[in-house]
Amino acid sequence: MFQTLPGFREFYPEDCARRNFIFSKWREAAKTFCFEEFDGPVLESLELLTAKSGPEIASQLFNFTDKGGREVTLRPELTPTLARMVGAKAGSIRRPVRWFGIAENFRYEKPQKGRLRSHYQLNADILGEAGVGADAEIIALLIHTLCSFGLSATDFVIRLSDRNLWLALLESKGITGGAVVPVLSIIDKLERDDPESVVKKLNEAGVEDADSFFKEITALAEIRSLEELEAFFSSRQVEQGEFSASGRLESWKALLEILKASGAEDFIRVDLGIVRGLAYYTGFVFEAFQTKGKARALAGGGRYDHLVEKLGGQPMPAVGFGMGDVTLNDLLLEKKIEPPAEGRADIYVVIGGADQRPMALKTVAKLRKAGFRVDFPIKDQGFGKQFKTADQSGAKFALVVGEQEVKDRGVRVKNLSSGEESFLTEEKIITFLTGFFNC
Amino acid sequence: MFQTLPGFREFYPEDCARRNFIFSKWREAAKTFCFEEFDGPVLESLELLTAKSGPEIASQLFNFTDKGGREVTLRPELTPTLARMVGAKAGSIRRPVRWFGIAENFRYEKPQKGRLRSHYQLNADILGEAGVGADAEIIALLIHTLCSFGLSATDFVIRLSDRNLWLALLESKGITGGAVVPVLSIIDKLERDDPESVVKKLNEAGVEDADSFFKEITALAEIRSLEELEAFFSSRQVEQGEFSASGRLESWKALLEILKASGAEDFIRVDLGIVRGLAYYTGFVFEAFQTKGKARALAGGGRYDHLVEKLGGQPMPAVGFGMGDVTLNDLLLEKKIEPPAEGRADIYVVIGGADQRPMALKTVAKLRKAGFRVDFPIKDQGFGKQFKTADQSGAKFALVVGEQEVKDRGVRVKNLSSGEESFLTEEKIITFLTGFFNC
Repeated sequence: MFQTLPGFREFYPEDCARRNFIFSKWREAAKTFCFEEFDGPVLESLELLTAKSGPEIASQLFNFTDKGGREVTLRPELTPTLARMVGAKAGSIRRPVRWFGIAENFRYEKPQKGRLRSHYQLNADILGEAGVGADAEIIALLIHTLCSFGLSATDFVIRLSDRNLWLALLESKGITGGAVVPVLSIIDKLERDDPESVVKKLNEAGVEDADSFFKEITALAEIRSLEELEAFFSSRQVEQGEFSASGRLESWKALLEILKASGAEDFIRVDLGIVRGLAYYTGFVFEAFQTKGKARALAGGGRYDHLVEKLGGQPMPAVGFGMGDVTLNDLLLEKKIEPPAEGRADIYVVIGGADQRPMALKTVAKLRKAGFRVDFPIKDQGFGKQFKTADQSGAKFALVVGEQEVKDRGVRVKNLSSGEESFLTEEKIITFLTGFFNC
Repeated sequence: MFQTLPGFREFYPEDCARRNFIFSKWREAAKTFCFEEFDGPVLESLELLTAKSGPEIASQLFNFTDKGGREVTLRPELTPTLARMVGAKAGSIRRPVRWFGIAENFRYEKPQKGRLRSHYQLNADILGEAGVGADAEIIALLIHTLCSFGLSATDFVIRLSDRNLWLALLESKGITGGAVVPVLSIIDKLERDDPESVVKKLNEAGVEDADSFFKEITALAEIRSLEELEAFFSSRQVEQGEFSASGRLESWKALLEILKASGAEDFIRVDLGIVRGLAYYTGFVFEAFQTKGKARALAGGGRYDHLVEKLGGQPMPAVGFGMGDVTLNDLLLEKKIEPPAEGRADIYVVIGGADQRPMALKTVAKLRKAGFRVDFPIKDQGFGKQFKTADQSGAKFALVVGEQEVKDRGVRVKNLSSGEESFLTEEKIITFLTGFFNC
């Protein structure tokens, strides 16, 4: 009769358990790195988003006019909210800020596999620290998070690149200001597009001498080591404005050294093919890529030193990443990585009949008060059906409250794995079960 | 510069911890009762909501037209989604269905204290079981949930009423069909409004002989015990259609007996003053009320046996409750009930200087892999500042990696409470700390 809207998901208990498994792993990893959780509103003013990403972002947003005439949008990401919140308390907040959030994000696009209109994302960010130590810590957390699911360096790598180097190359060709983002998004698709269409797009974007520029960007995008990077810049002498290629190479060395000391080396691939689509990155950028099957990005991020100032009024360097649940969950399914199996009950109380129900309910309440997950038949049923439900519930024990047990002021305990049975007086039930479940 | 939209909240880490504390208590209580978690989309078709509650509901909704021309709304409650989801799988789902959800809900109303445009709600429902055992189980869960925060019968009571009795009284006066909901909502405000304005509103709603009807409803609304209820119905002989006052009184006795056996007696108040605003209730209805200070409703619910059929196409009896986070949190604040204090770190690694950083980072990575929450200075700092940060972080131990420690291939461990220090070789760090934190 009624349908879910296109691009939205329903979470039946099994799906909800998978989702919550992902959330709890995300939360655990972030807390292991001493990140504190925050959250913001699901709905934000459209202006917050366009201020961050330009008016063209609106075409991808789930935005609308609210009943009060406000231009608003379901958040497409948590970073603008983060920048506003941190910016508002920039004067009093302890630095570096280490925050994470688990947010539902929205976009209005044609739904397709791996891209829904609503998805969840882990965001982790360090603000107030400009040094590469923060970049390394964020990348280490990204690796730790994926590994905490049981994934390893055979499943994913971190492709590490540098927005600064790309911006310097663009600047050396006179591509600055509003021309930068369109060219970056052409470069972002370099791997997938054929050369002619790239040159065509560069021409359309107003790039002079697009053929030779295509060669330049291909040469940079194909760089896969620090040595190649050094050679590229020493041969070209790209030194523009505040940018110093040699200074930048020092930062690369420092970052790679820290990552090595943190045991992250096996996961890191220098790969200048990564530029990241978003306008606001200012330094190192990276993506976590699945190594087998379809080479999908599992997460991405980088440094964005100007955003807090733009949205919050106070300058504050920042670096962070986002990891979505949809692609990650696809990979977990492929790898048969499942949430820990968990029955819904610890104990099932089997009730002889209406006369025994009061005593049984008393026992149920007592057990629940003690913290056990307890199920029982809401209406009277035969023993056979009750034991079947008990088995399905995942309970370790059935507690039988029948005529004889009520007379004897106790319950019959049946271990549902071993079949072993014994009688327990009312007073001993909790002690017996606590002893069992704490082992 | 940028502001949060009116009626929406930001959750800085301390607020987020409070919110998550409430969520985890909710989740824990529901799981203790063997309820399984589900969730649905934050955005639903407007039609799903108006089908459930009538077109007039739209005036309170956060609804809009999406970019595809669909009439959609941010969900005001989880129940219509639940009814659709259960209805869609009614043929295959194990009954009774015991589901709970923790959902962000929205409404477009003037924001005021305790009523925001976005709030969170715990919903717990049993579907597929028509007997009062299900009503009792739902009420027991509601009580258990509030008690799990440390609240007791001195803090709240459950006001228990019966929509059926109200509907029978209305029907005996010829108030049926579309006339029912407007009259119920007048009755819902009986406690707060003065008699003249109630009579005036009844007249406006087209009730005949509003003066005598006002006396009838006041008499029913003032009933506070089963005996008074019996007297009310025996004196009036309200027997309409399928309704039998004597049969209904039997259900009351059965429900109160089960609640007594479950140890809920102290919390239960028969109180026919409760009618609940929503149109779809069909039997027992109840509200959890704060007993001190402002008598606010902390939660409310009841039986709604026709909703699944209406939205899902299959008949399925149902009973449930909803509990919001805003009023609950206000009460917790008044009672000074706080989330357990939790430092953000277990261990703080103090680094002598740049030369010791690689060894320190290695230790940090190893400790995190073992599951400890570990913080350290991202850039080089003096010992004094580092120990100060270590204290603020809540860490139990500082691990000092200085020049001498690196030479000796180990760390100096300082217990930050006792001040006790000792040297540990690299191999013994994990064993020592695991021993400590598992105690």
